[in-house]
Amino acid sequence: MTNLASAHDTIRAVQWRGDHLRLLDQRLLPAEEKWLDCGDYTAVIHAIKDLAVRGAPAIGISAAWGVVLAAQRGAPMDQALAELRAARPTAVNLMWALDRMKACIAAGADTAALEREAQAIQDEDLAANRHMGELGAALIVPGSGVMTHCNTGSLATSGYGTALGVIRAGVAAGRIDHVFAGETRPWQQGARLTMWELVRDGIPAKLIADSAASHLMKSGAVKWVIVGADRIAANGDTANKIGTYQLAIVARHHGVKFMVVAPSSTVDMATASGDDIDIELRDAAELLSVAGRRTVVEGAQAWNPVFDVTPASLIDAIVTERGVIEHPTLARMKAVFAA
Amino acid sequence: MTNLASAHDTIRAVQWRGDHLRLLDQRLLPAEEKWLDCGDYTAVIHAIKDLAVRGAPAIGISAAWGVVLAAQRGAPMDQALAELRAARPTAVNLMWALDRMKACIAAGADTAALEREAQAIQDEDLAANRHMGELGAALIVPGSGVMTHCNTGSLATSGYGTALGVIRAGVAAGRIDHVFAGETRPWQQGARLTMWELVRDGIPAKLIADSAASHLMKSGAVKWVIVGADRIAANGDTANKIGTYQLAIVARHHGVKFMVVAPSSTVDMATASGDDIDIELRDAAELLSVAGRRTVVEGAQAWNPVFDVTPASLIDAIVTERGVIEHPTLARMKAVFAA
Repeated sequence: MTNLASAHDTIRAVQWRGDHLRLLDQRLLPAEEKWLDCGDYTAVIHAIKDLAVRGAPAIGISAAWGVVLAAQRGAPMDQALAELRAARPTAVNLMWALDRMKACIAAGADTAALEREAQAIQDEDLAANRHMGELGAALIVPGSGVMTHCNTGSLATSGYGTALGVIRAGVAAGRIDHVFAGETRPWQQGARLTMWELVRDGIPAKLIADSAASHLMKSGAVKWVIVGADRIAANGDTANKIGTYQLAIVARHHGVKFMVVAPSSTVDMATASGDDIDIELRDAAELLSVAGRRTVVEGAQAWNPVFDVTPASLIDAIVTERGVIEHPTLARMKAVFAA
Repeated sequence: MTNLASAHDTIRAVQWRGDHLRLLDQRLLPAEEKWLDCGDYTAVIHAIKDLAVRGAPAIGISAAWGVVLAAQRGAPMDQALAELRAARPTAVNLMWALDRMKACIAAGADTAALEREAQAIQDEDLAANRHMGELGAALIVPGSGVMTHCNTGSLATSGYGTALGVIRAGVAAGRIDHVFAGETRPWQQGARLTMWELVRDGIPAKLIADSAASHLMKSGAVKWVIVGADRIAANGDTANKIGTYQLAIVARHHGVKFMVVAPSSTVDMATASGDDIDIELRDAAELLSVAGRRTVVEGAQAWNPVFDVTPASLIDAIVTERGVIEHPTLARMKAVFAA
């Protein structure tokens, strides 16, 4: 276990350097490990919009550091908060982190106090991930194969990961013996990022095409699908990377269980249900080209929603650092997340 | 309708030229329209194995021409038949076409007679596609959106297509007003080939990520999923491109109907059920690289099944040139395909 722990401790994709934010550019992985230095908050916004940094918790943490940068440079804080908030619409952690920073500002915090708050957000995220890892792993029968989608690891968070944190804890505890990662088109976060983390940790893993999940589940090789979340509504409906909903349907069809792992900052009790969540549509070009090379005939159109909503009825467990909600309902969510 | 008809009449990916077989190299589309000239049967085998020609009907037709080439060159016919048969394991049309050629040889056919038989296989396929198009389109309520997977068009057949033939006929008849095509990882046949055919025909179409199908279906924009087949067992279980089974599950979940379109040469009454169908596993490299560029970290493994089996219970209609089998069962299949 020590080897695994030290290995996954080494990846910190979001690093505060006192006067700038250093981000591991996730668009270039695994071919290249290039770091981006953001010297002001607008550079952080570009990094979020362009997916240099992605993953709901990592976006929230980066935005908090963006507020610190704005304060250090004397930028108008209301404008900085508004612009950071608009960087990505679906991830609620972004709004949550900015609300914390805004509350500090309203309380008269100076730059040093804002820096402490951003650091607290980052440190609490890491602690939450470790705790969720233990909670989620405890649900898994020893010797299980599991499947995951997108990237929810160190790269998507302050470190360790949400769903991938549960997988790390499950592997360390001997409960998980094999991991299957879906490619996660069109950005290939599973292929590029999750496989990179799994191989670095020496975790037995195989990449599959997103559409091979059902054929895999039919074989009995998977006991749980474990995913992250970008926003969890009051009734437990969960917005996450496109394809998550499809996995939840086919998991239920095969008797495979479905776990959502996310810090409480992902829960939005002000959103009643998944019907109230805006789904971000991104540029069709993401489907029409690969690595800058056009792969689809000129004149072709594409429809590119990058999130979808999994209804609570298809979720067996939501794991947060505040505890596990099995078979989530509004009442069970309220018991943990009462406003 | 005449414009559409003349447009799709122009694509003939498998062309016999008297002393060689000319194939449109489907690996290079849509970037490049390059033709491969196969002067002997071993070149045909390479074209099948390397996916220069793909699609179950097109593979069968190409193999029939391979037998003619073997006869013209005086190759040992038993060996040629055996090698052609081994080129791809899942597509039963390949075995069916070779059995027809073998029966001719056994009956003492000369090279000219073998050439007539191969031409008959090709011509009958085109006629079957036209007829299936009418039969399948008649099942669709006017004004419907439909979804398809992989490529089942002119490129996959002698022309017109199987599932894509139904879509062409449905569009011409005003029954289909919009088509969604799944990318079909890892070979991207939907993105590269189906979109190429749809754009050429001027059919309103959008490309989607394979994992966006459920989110799309939830919106109500799709009434039918229409796919081809590589092998249909006696009970109606259908082997087709990886991802087909997943689409069938999520279609049923959303009340979307599911249609399989294939010539009777795809039906294998000697295979009792889908459990008896060998699923071809291809090289993990197909998932680890894109366009020759490594996209996944070194040391990563992948699992790459290229077909899956959709159980008959998830299929609303199997359309062949012999008629439509609704809610297929062994008894209903036997009524049409008694040995």
